[in-house]
Amino acid sequence: MIDKMPVYEDIKKAHERIQPLVHRTPVLSSSAINDLLDLQLLFKCENFQKAGAFKFRGATNAVRQLTTKEAKKGVATHSSGNHAGALSLAARKLEIPAYIVMPENAPAIKKKAVRGYGAEITFCEPTLEAREKTLEKVQQDTGATFIHPYHNFNVICGQGTAAKELLEDYPELDVIIAPVGGGGLMSGTSIAAKALKNDIKVFGAEPLNADDAYRSFKEGVLIPSLKPETIADGLLTSLSSLTFKIISENVDDIFTAKEDIIVEAMRIVWERMKIIIEPSSAVPLAAIMENKYNFKGKKVGVIISGGNVDLNHLPF
Amino acid sequence: MIDKMPVYEDIKKAHERIQPLVHRTPVLSSSAINDLLDLQLLFKCENFQKAGAFKFRGATNAVRQLTTKEAKKGVATHSSGNHAGALSLAARKLEIPAYIVMPENAPAIKKKAVRGYGAEITFCEPTLEAREKTLEKVQQDTGATFIHPYHNFNVICGQGTAAKELLEDYPELDVIIAPVGGGGLMSGTSIAAKALKNDIKVFGAEPLNADDAYRSFKEGVLIPSLKPETIADGLLTSLSSLTFKIISENVDDIFTAKEDIIVEAMRIVWERMKIIIEPSSAVPLAAIMENKYNFKGKKVGVIISGGNVDLNHLPF
Repeated sequence: MIDKMPVYEDIKKAHERIQPLVHRTPVLSSSAINDLLDLQLLFKCENFQKAGAFKFRGATNAVRQLTTKEAKKGVATHSSGNHAGALSLAARKLEIPAYIVMPENAPAIKKKAVRGYGAEITFCEPTLEAREKTLEKVQQDTGATFIHPYHNFNVICGQGTAAKELLEDYPELDVIIAPVGGGGLMSGTSIAAKALKNDIKVFGAEPLNADDAYRSFKEGVLIPSLKPETIADGLLTSLSSLTFKIISENVDDIFTAKEDIIVEAMRIVWERMKIIIEPSSAVPLAAIMENKYNFKGKKVGVIISGGNVDLNHLPF
Repeated sequence: MIDKMPVYEDIKKAHERIQPLVHRTPVLSSSAINDLLDLQLLFKCENFQKAGAFKFRGATNAVRQLTTKEAKKGVATHSSGNHAGALSLAARKLEIPAYIVMPENAPAIKKKAVRGYGAEITFCEPTLEAREKTLEKVQQDTGATFIHPYHNFNVICGQGTAAKELLEDYPELDVIIAPVGGGGLMSGTSIAAKALKNDIKVFGAEPLNADDAYRSFKEGVLIPSLKPETIADGLLTSLSSLTFKIISENVDDIFTAKEDIIVEAMRIVWERMKIIIEPSSAVPLAAIMENKYNFKGKKVGVIISGGNVDLNHLPF
């Protein structure tokens, strides 16, 4: 149970804690893309973060707050994505064990990354039930602490440090936009942004085909995703009670993006900026492209969430 | 005819001239790649340069030295690659015409880029003879000044500014290495590096399948390429009398790289550094991978020449 809502002071403390351990990632811009959309975009490049995604911030903040006794027994999670890699690397840096439950059908490249960081993988059937059950078993066997990918106070505080850095570098932003999956990044981003600049607009971006946060936000009740199908494989998960609460309170609006526009946005970034971003990271730009009027002439900070793509399976 | 050899003073002047017009590109590193190869690599990222390649430096330096009368009539060149795009953009920024002769079989993406920069394209048969003849005709018709992609004093001086910036940022480098195609980048790099640090080692890197510079360097006579076939499409051209002379005098050694290692090196950079580099830019890293012993423990500056790749035709 989580009974405490994170506030900006917690993100500040998280930042002090993890600053020596994470990259302060660069903020890039592209005059070609700005001209195309008639606005000014500033991309916070978490694709250059350790383990290739913002997830390393939250994972690091979480593992660094374990007690000595807890740390000894290690950490565990179930994930087929960037959180698995990030937690494995954060654990390795602290020289503690990491136990990752992964669905058998997880992409080979993710399995390889997790294994490369020295974590122990337990495979399971690709259902949420199997994942949770297998994780429970792993915890019983090892005594490891479960670090949830987003329904976790420390993880959310860690994720919020990316927006904090972006606004420290560019305090003049009118808007900040981040992708929404489970809502950990969006939660941390919204808390940091509203605290640092109370008139900033905080937007979420979600694939139309996995629009549980959009629908939950509009309806005012948590509506989980049912069989989401999107190329943005980092955004398949649904909000948790915690992230839904934070997002409801802090986020100004959520925009959706269609699959073909997500691919187009991803390609524009690859071609124009010469940086590798994963499909999930292209969702904010795609949402901006689909809702130009809301962003025209604005100075917009975009969190690029990660750069982990399988080069053997590109959408172009 | 070119009767003057560029010296460092010329590169310094070129830098003063073009500095407000070109990006001072970032220098990136990757602890994963350093660990893999047991050395320290510093990548000068000209893939982030305007028009996506170092070529914009030389082209800008050349067009900015035209007389008013010359400028009015514009510039011309034959190229199927980055020089065409760079010259077109440099001309557009000066608001003068650019006439580009391209072989009919040039990649669609290159044609699109050149057209996007507003240049006038004349197509020709894909032979050197046809290119030169067509260019001559274009020059007669327009009075445009021919800007050769590398057999050109001003172009070489412009290209040398990338190495100048790299050594200004990292004066402690033991080695600097750049890819060799026509030799413009290699020439400028070698002049700048040796002037700024007389005990630095300056190396060239060339595809084994297009090793005219390697053979010319070893034999001491200019040996042009015969039907080179390499994925590194920016390195198909042969040295000119001018670049051969400069390279013979300033470069310490040239290493070659096999095709499969070039692709592997390119992939490592994409996956580990999350940046897009073109195959030609992977040749120095591939040469280092094939000649590890020569680089072990060293601090090595690598010029990443460009990031213009056709995402529809990737080697992986």
